[in-house]
Amino acid sequence: MPVSPPIITAAILAIGDELLSGRTKDKNIAYLAERLTECGIDLREVRIIPDMEQAIIAAINALRQSYHYVFTSGGIGPTHDDIMAESVAKAFGRLCLFDPRAEKILSAYYQAQKQELTAGRRLMTRMPEGAELIANTISGAPGFKIENCFIMAGVPQIFQAMVQEILPLLEKSAPVQTIIIPCPLGESRISKKLGEIQHAFPQIAIGSYPQICDKAGQRWRLEIVLRGRDHEALAQAAAAVKKMLADFEEET
Amino acid sequence: MPVSPPIITAAILAIGDELLSGRTKDKNIAYLAERLTECGIDLREVRIIPDMEQAIIAAINALRQSYHYVFTSGGIGPTHDDIMAESVAKAFGRLCLFDPRAEKILSAYYQAQKQELTAGRRLMTRMPEGAELIANTISGAPGFKIENCFIMAGVPQIFQAMVQEILPLLEKSAPVQTIIIPCPLGESRISKKLGEIQHAFPQIAIGSYPQICDKAGQRWRLEIVLRGRDHEALAQAAAAVKKMLADFEEET
Repeated sequence: MPVSPPIITAAILAIGDELLSGRTKDKNIAYLAERLTECGIDLREVRIIPDMEQAIIAAINALRQSYHYVFTSGGIGPTHDDIMAESVAKAFGRLCLFDPRAEKILSAYYQAQKQELTAGRRLMTRMPEGAELIANTISGAPGFKIENCFIMAGVPQIFQAMVQEILPLLEKSAPVQTIIIPCPLGESRISKKLGEIQHAFPQIAIGSYPQICDKAGQRWRLEIVLRGRDHEALAQAAAAVKKMLADFEEET
Repeated sequence: MPVSPPIITAAILAIGDELLSGRTKDKNIAYLAERLTECGIDLREVRIIPDMEQAIIAAINALRQSYHYVFTSGGIGPTHDDIMAESVAKAFGRLCLFDPRAEKILSAYYQAQKQELTAGRRLMTRMPEGAELIANTISGAPGFKIENCFIMAGVPQIFQAMVQEILPLLEKSAPVQTIIIPCPLGESRISKKLGEIQHAFPQIAIGSYPQICDKAGQRWRLEIVLRGRDHEALAQAAAAVKKMLADFEEET
């Protein structure tokens, strides 16, 4: 029997009081979730936590031991609430140091704008000892990678640019294929038969997602979503769902 | 010295493969985050996890022990992937039973539509023994509360209706007041002085949030956000920030 290749798993950790207060709507999680899905990397958990050192250390250490990759957003700017570099260094039990490669990048970046690498800007070159840089093509100040953790900026444009830098470096799994089947019937109507199909195809994840289409909550739309890496089983499961819907249609 | 009233804390747990795949953008977290902020409840953590029993049990048990309240969204429909009732019952070590009050509500709901409470629909009345109902004014099937956990639907309109039901029941803290100060200077420029102001006002959370305003990443906008329950300290900290900005302006 051939050994299945391992499925690469990931978590996202977004840092910021602003997200938790509801004032800022996160854009990074959905963006990275889509990219990971395209790469066949299974995003298994997302956490949003405040700018608090103990919370960051606990989350980093929990997630990096549970998943192949951890991607973070936020907390790497130059102000007092940017505590990711220090917190991640503590999580890994390493020193947090000014990084000469990052200083060189930022010096050149500001020189090109006829500005200086001030003490304030230099704060953005701090990172755990032994970290690798993640290039920032937008505003110079790099993110960093330490073991399986990728520490990136919270500003969406910079986060996205950093994600583009690291995607080629990631180990990938076979992409999950998705088949979406619109369903004219309510969830309760199909739940038993759909459960039987799920039981018959354990390697396929079958979900049903209702949406309300009007303000009164009277008109609903349902989609059945099938996901899997085994293309043959996926096609068979989708055929079974379509047959189920056709059978219901005949009944009525 | 007067004793400060306790600060009520909360976590949100959103369930769903759909959110993790990036296909569905979450609307519930931001909605509830804003409502909690209005009530003075500190949202301290958000987690998004898949429809997997072990993940749900672990997250429920971690969060309910760490925060005053846990609010969940998703996984309470009638299909095989709706495993919240069963998973939450297991997390609390309770039986998962058909609830007679929920059955009565759903019977009446469907009767009014000249429909029946089928076996499929009846699945939505299962919940942990001893749970209390959360009314669903949109589509009948209730959520439930067990100890400090509020288990609600994932469909945004229903989630929001359920949140409206439970908000009056929650213990609240003094609302956090927010002052937002637009800042014409870059973060690196103000980081030292802003850190000093933060140090002088430990009871106020001061954050600085840069946004990029153009595609090239050249034009930035910065907001300094101050948050706190001590109105006097908040006003003083805001005055200190404004003085800092005025001093910078004089310098240049």
